[in-house]
Amino acid sequence: MIKFDTSHAHLQENIFDYQKAVTLAHTQLHEKSGAGNDFVGWVDWPKSYDHEEFERIKAAAKRLEGQCDVLLVCGIGGSYLGARAAIEMMRGLYCQNKPEVIFIGNTFSSTYFKQVEAYIQDKEIVLNVISKSGTTTETAMAFRMLKQLMEKKYSKEECQRRILATTDKARGTLKELADKEGYETFVIPDDIGGRYSVLTAVGLLPMALAGIDIDAVMKGFAQAYEDLKNPDLHDNPAYQYAVARRILENSGKDAEMLVTYEPQMAMIAEWWKQLFGESEGKEGKGILPCSATFSTDLHSLGQFIQEGKKMLYETLLLVEAPTLDGTFPSDAENLDNMNYLAGKSLDWVNKMACQGTLEAHEVTGDVPNLIITMPDMREETFGYMCYFFFKACAVSVYLLNVNPFNQPGVEVYKKNMFRLLGKN
Amino acid sequence: MIKFDTSHAHLQENIFDYQKAVTLAHTQLHEKSGAGNDFVGWVDWPKSYDHEEFERIKAAAKRLEGQCDVLLVCGIGGSYLGARAAIEMMRGLYCQNKPEVIFIGNTFSSTYFKQVEAYIQDKEIVLNVISKSGTTTETAMAFRMLKQLMEKKYSKEECQRRILATTDKARGTLKELADKEGYETFVIPDDIGGRYSVLTAVGLLPMALAGIDIDAVMKGFAQAYEDLKNPDLHDNPAYQYAVARRILENSGKDAEMLVTYEPQMAMIAEWWKQLFGESEGKEGKGILPCSATFSTDLHSLGQFIQEGKKMLYETLLLVEAPTLDGTFPSDAENLDNMNYLAGKSLDWVNKMACQGTLEAHEVTGDVPNLIITMPDMREETFGYMCYFFFKACAVSVYLLNVNPFNQPGVEVYKKNMFRLLGKN
Repeated sequence: MIKFDTSHAHLQENIFDYQKAVTLAHTQLHEKSGAGNDFVGWVDWPKSYDHEEFERIKAAAKRLEGQCDVLLVCGIGGSYLGARAAIEMMRGLYCQNKPEVIFIGNTFSSTYFKQVEAYIQDKEIVLNVISKSGTTTETAMAFRMLKQLMEKKYSKEECQRRILATTDKARGTLKELADKEGYETFVIPDDIGGRYSVLTAVGLLPMALAGIDIDAVMKGFAQAYEDLKNPDLHDNPAYQYAVARRILENSGKDAEMLVTYEPQMAMIAEWWKQLFGESEGKEGKGILPCSATFSTDLHSLGQFIQEGKKMLYETLLLVEAPTLDGTFPSDAENLDNMNYLAGKSLDWVNKMACQGTLEAHEVTGDVPNLIITMPDMREETFGYMCYFFFKACAVSVYLLNVNPFNQPGVEVYKKNMFRLLGKN
Repeated sequence: MIKFDTSHAHLQENIFDYQKAVTLAHTQLHEKSGAGNDFVGWVDWPKSYDHEEFERIKAAAKRLEGQCDVLLVCGIGGSYLGARAAIEMMRGLYCQNKPEVIFIGNTFSSTYFKQVEAYIQDKEIVLNVISKSGTTTETAMAFRMLKQLMEKKYSKEECQRRILATTDKARGTLKELADKEGYETFVIPDDIGGRYSVLTAVGLLPMALAGIDIDAVMKGFAQAYEDLKNPDLHDNPAYQYAVARRILENSGKDAEMLVTYEPQMAMIAEWWKQLFGESEGKEGKGILPCSATFSTDLHSLGQFIQEGKKMLYETLLLVEAPTLDGTFPSDAENLDNMNYLAGKSLDWVNKMACQGTLEAHEVTGDVPNLIITMPDMREETFGYMCYFFFKACAVSVYLLNVNPFNQPGVEVYKKNMFRLLGKN
């Protein structure tokens, strides 16, 4: 379903020379014997996920269908990026279906919170709060304020219907609060870290509430599990990508720019940045993840990529079939001289821009390009893509001799902040 | 109005040792004697801008006030980023004032175009098309389709009222078309490049149509002109920033991450990326511009910054007074254990997060931090900030011995694309 192409990357090593190291990493992943093996629950998740809970997610979405102008998703990091990336990719940026989805609890900005608060004042809302412990400060603060707002707006029973908590299965502040208030709860598994959690209740519940067909998502996820379970590099494009990144890093490329040609994929790039950056940015190692949306950013970052410091490579994340297309119209007067494109599909022009840019960057600019191609931006493809990147990331980081599943550096700012906030 | 602080950057050279080179760059800028001197019209623009046209911009906004649900701004690169950055910073992300502003003509994505087209179908619209020549393909394609849509929706006279063109003063495809159709036109000056154009009609007209007080913007812009006209580094924080970037680059930092703590500033970072990346990314030189919004991205890129490869420094773009603030409420039951913050202002918590993060990245993470502090996100500050970054950028790039005002690399993909599109 997903194709990987290194023919524009001018790799200075042979990918297949890495077979032995890849097989070892693969075995460590599947046998849960490598670094961070407490957090590899995602590896078998396409098979092992809780089917009873999955049905509860769909039932909750069904129950609330049509009763909500705005869905508030309150979470940060892995409890924010995956759901947002999924919903934007599959619904697009100007989807007219209800509910509108607003992400909150992902910032301390007072202006952001107060503006959203005013915006939702007269709207019907549903709130999904997502936090493993319930103590993540951004999310806990926003949740308290939104809970109070909803308790003013709705009866206790209505709040119980309209507030859904995704949290630890048994303990923690949020779990206790939710049980006491009578909110339905969904589970963040113990052995799946935030950045690998988009196809647990963390991402699936917001997707379902936003009207996305999560059965199709999980179908693609399961397909990828089957397609990518072979460690043989010849048969595994995810592992090829894992290796290609390391080869490019070895040749002096310190930054990877994930490039899409669809604005609705911009948040996929943000999700990818967390996945790769947080997994490998340790011990003074790792490739700096950055991103761009073309052709938009060809008119901003394009100059640097083409002629600036030769420190980066691009990874194109391309889509074969756009969700919507149209035909460029003719114009009798042709005052704009654009009739040479009349009758062409809009997407064809996008594809030509991509081809021309690839040639410009690769040949003239001497910038290596890896190419990942997906069939479309629909549900099955999304599920497939998640597993593709999960496996690619885990193996790529094992090749660097780094634990892909912890994030010790994220705690440092929190510790300082808690001291300044006067938290015990 | 804007303060600059290097005390967390551990600079390995003395900024003031660069005085001679800075004075030379300053003189070349003000006397129009350096590289790219055809494009330094922005230097005196706070004084020399066309006051008659400025009044026409305000009159157009006044005339269309209240008659528009959606303002479509059709442009790309410098004809997109500045206006979007300005409007988001000053209005915020969930502003409820009309019009809603949608940016278009900045992508070839068919899905994006078709979704916006459906979204505006039953809404009252005003269209501002922005293109120097009128031949920029993304913008010209979108404009033709939107023009046809508006001609179906409105009478010829109404289209003449509702379509505004910002283009060359005298020639080019768009100027000819606009004159023939009877659209009011506004001028993109010949001697100001796209990325320096936000305070010409290019950015001012969308801002005014969006209800922003452009008199106040230009007041801040003029204030910065006065405050930053002294080449003495002791008195010029913009030039200090220009030098500090080069010192950090000399010490092996290849990437600069512009960090804000306000989601409504995220597009300012995108605008800044074009300004700096396109100005200095030439001849194999330049610092890779990237960006993050904290605390959101502390939960994604934070790990890499804290413990990953030591290749980057941060530039914090901080805001003293938020546009809106609130008080964190108490809760009788305190089920979430958050009462220790009850009575605190939301913005105070944001400031503590910033202080804790600065310490984490600087001290524990060994990442240099430059700090630029602005008083607020209001009109005067926006105008002031633009000039601050313009001068900082131009001088910083002159110090690198690069022409800050051309962008030869942007043409390469276009040339290839035109060949593939079959354009003569």
